[in-house]
Amino acid sequence: MSGREEPDDELLGRVFLSRVVEPGDEVAGRWVREYGVGEVVRRLREGAEPLPGVSYKRWDGLRARAVRAEPGRDLAVALETGVRFLCPGDVEWPGQLDDLGDARPVGLWVRGRASLRMWALRSVAVVGARACTEYGAHMAATLAGGLAERGWVVVSGGAYGVDGAAHRGALGTGGATVAVLACGVDRPYPRGHTQLINRIAEQGLVIGELPPGDHPTPSRFIVRNRVIAALTRGTVVVEAALRSGSLVTARAAQRLGRHTMGVPGPATSGLSAGVHELLRGDAVLVTDAAEVVELVGDMGELAPERRGPVLPRDLLEPGARRVLAALPGRREARAEEVARGAQTTEDDAIARLYELRSLGYVERHGDGWKLTRQAMISVRAGRSGC
Amino acid sequence: MSGREEPDDELLGRVFLSRVVEPGDEVAGRWVREYGVGEVVRRLREGAEPLPGVSYKRWDGLRARAVRAEPGRDLAVALETGVRFLCPGDVEWPGQLDDLGDARPVGLWVRGRASLRMWALRSVAVVGARACTEYGAHMAATLAGGLAERGWVVVSGGAYGVDGAAHRGALGTGGATVAVLACGVDRPYPRGHTQLINRIAEQGLVIGELPPGDHPTPSRFIVRNRVIAALTRGTVVVEAALRSGSLVTARAAQRLGRHTMGVPGPATSGLSAGVHELLRGDAVLVTDAAEVVELVGDMGELAPERRGPVLPRDLLEPGARRVLAALPGRREARAEEVARGAQTTEDDAIARLYELRSLGYVERHGDGWKLTRQAMISVRAGRSGC
Repeated sequence: MSGREEPDDELLGRVFLSRVVEPGDEVAGRWVREYGVGEVVRRLREGAEPLPGVSYKRWDGLRARAVRAEPGRDLAVALETGVRFLCPGDVEWPGQLDDLGDARPVGLWVRGRASLRMWALRSVAVVGARACTEYGAHMAATLAGGLAERGWVVVSGGAYGVDGAAHRGALGTGGATVAVLACGVDRPYPRGHTQLINRIAEQGLVIGELPPGDHPTPSRFIVRNRVIAALTRGTVVVEAALRSGSLVTARAAQRLGRHTMGVPGPATSGLSAGVHELLRGDAVLVTDAAEVVELVGDMGELAPERRGPVLPRDLLEPGARRVLAALPGRREARAEEVARGAQTTEDDAIARLYELRSLGYVERHGDGWKLTRQAMISVRAGRSGC
Repeated sequence: MSGREEPDDELLGRVFLSRVVEPGDEVAGRWVREYGVGEVVRRLREGAEPLPGVSYKRWDGLRARAVRAEPGRDLAVALETGVRFLCPGDVEWPGQLDDLGDARPVGLWVRGRASLRMWALRSVAVVGARACTEYGAHMAATLAGGLAERGWVVVSGGAYGVDGAAHRGALGTGGATVAVLACGVDRPYPRGHTQLINRIAEQGLVIGELPPGDHPTPSRFIVRNRVIAALTRGTVVVEAALRSGSLVTARAAQRLGRHTMGVPGPATSGLSAGVHELLRGDAVLVTDAAEVVELVGDMGELAPERRGPVLPRDLLEPGARRVLAALPGRREARAEEVARGAQTTEDDAIARLYELRSLGYVERHGDGWKLTRQAMISVRAGRSGC
């Protein structure tokens, strides 16, 4: 609801749909595309003739949900608890989700202070088995930490095993990470990850398609994976048995034209068999963060530096401008020091630094952040009034 | 010298060259192609003007070796100790070595009873690090055993580590294996593999470019690898550090248009780093023998069965005919049983069975050998005099 005073009909309509329609429902996606949000909401509320493409039984199920839906209340509760709702086309909406066509989320619930759109621009998914080995957990954490240190945002599913190790690896290096949940973002799942997911909401972002309080189901985990795949420039599978859910994410990434990568393991390990199957196809074998960045960065990685920052300094949000101003002229600074200079928290500084990274203003090397060469020119130009 | 009574000039000339010229010397290979063996031998013996492409110093080195060379004696000693010498074009010469162009061996010294040409038709190289891990040794032995059980011949370099495990894996399942040495075939190297290499000469083949008694050098190991690559339909690298000699074999295989495969391992293992580098290029990831055969077998794998045996039964060597006759009509038999029926040793039966496998007469499933469907038709036709 960024930038809006009053919830408009489109917004309330999409909040309503996020409560009534299952994530990834392409039939409902087609309704929205063909009739518009308002008309679909009206038909579901008034319970007239079913819209095309569903049985009476399924229509009745949607109707039953529609009767109970209270979008105004959902939105109010969310906002009170620091959760916002993004609609396609919003300033913060990550445009790459539009690649999902009619399976695009009707909206996204978001906890955390960073701009999802900015962060998603330079993000990589690191996913894998829940029941991973120590090797898998080690590789997930090391890769995620290495990606964070190179200024990349690590996206995963918040689950036990590889997902959790990836999130922790990114958090542990003062990095940016996004958890995409298959339930309400106010309802950390699995329960054992409550603390981790709350921590991600502080330093990173917790997002999902389901409205506050909604619970995960097996099929919701599966359809959630398409969001992870679409949001990121590429998906790395760390460990996965044959027929693992992570392979669904990887194949969705392939279909969407994103990079698909796999971390090899012993040929004797059943938890690497799914990854090896991917690697026998079109996926690329990766063994460290540098190899991942080499692939997902390609030309796009260098372009902003060459072209200079993509957004003029004056158009940055005030918080981002303060963080940019707090960066020393030539040397590197740690996020903590930048936060002090910008008179904000370290978590907020991290959010802004990764946004500025996406825009080409700053870069991260290990623990240090510094201005890019292009940004220095633009900052000096700004200061001298040119 | 198969099929010859008296050593002819070409044969003696090539024995001479195998003593005088280093393996893989492309300049000498060009001389042979342009002037013929006889003329090159004459020039080296008579020490006239150097042939083109070498310095006086190098020519003098070759001359010094030429003076000491005694090809007649070399050949006599070899034959006494059960070693034969193959020339390009001989019945037993594996034609695929011709792909090496001017780097083709001038000839090959061979210990063992099987036909190198037949065996090489359906062979795969399994190579890797000398200082391999237990995982590497396990994978090499398992792959080699699985290849042997599918009727494939396992080629390797006789070294410690992966090579030795591959040979043992093939031998252990009553399989066919070829050791390509970088020294005289009568001079097992490494010394700790004397027993293994002698056993390979009994049940399989020990081959090399160097004449009896000659010793290995670092460069001979490297140039030996091109023979392993050229002889086989594909090369599997099991474990290899970056800059390992096995990668030379793999890259030679790639250049020669053979299949190149790698067995993945933990991304944290330096002994898998070289393999992973290959797999990030054009090599195919394999985790078991079935995947190797799927690749190297492709159409060629099925063709003989469909077309029927490639050599008419009457043209088989008497030993192979006896082994073929000893196979039961419909059920499978172990090599031991076939050997009894053919009144020969088990080692000899194994040699013939893998030859017959290459010709499309028989196939192996686990421990059992049986006639192919096409062979049954042809055998019945032969018996009934049609």
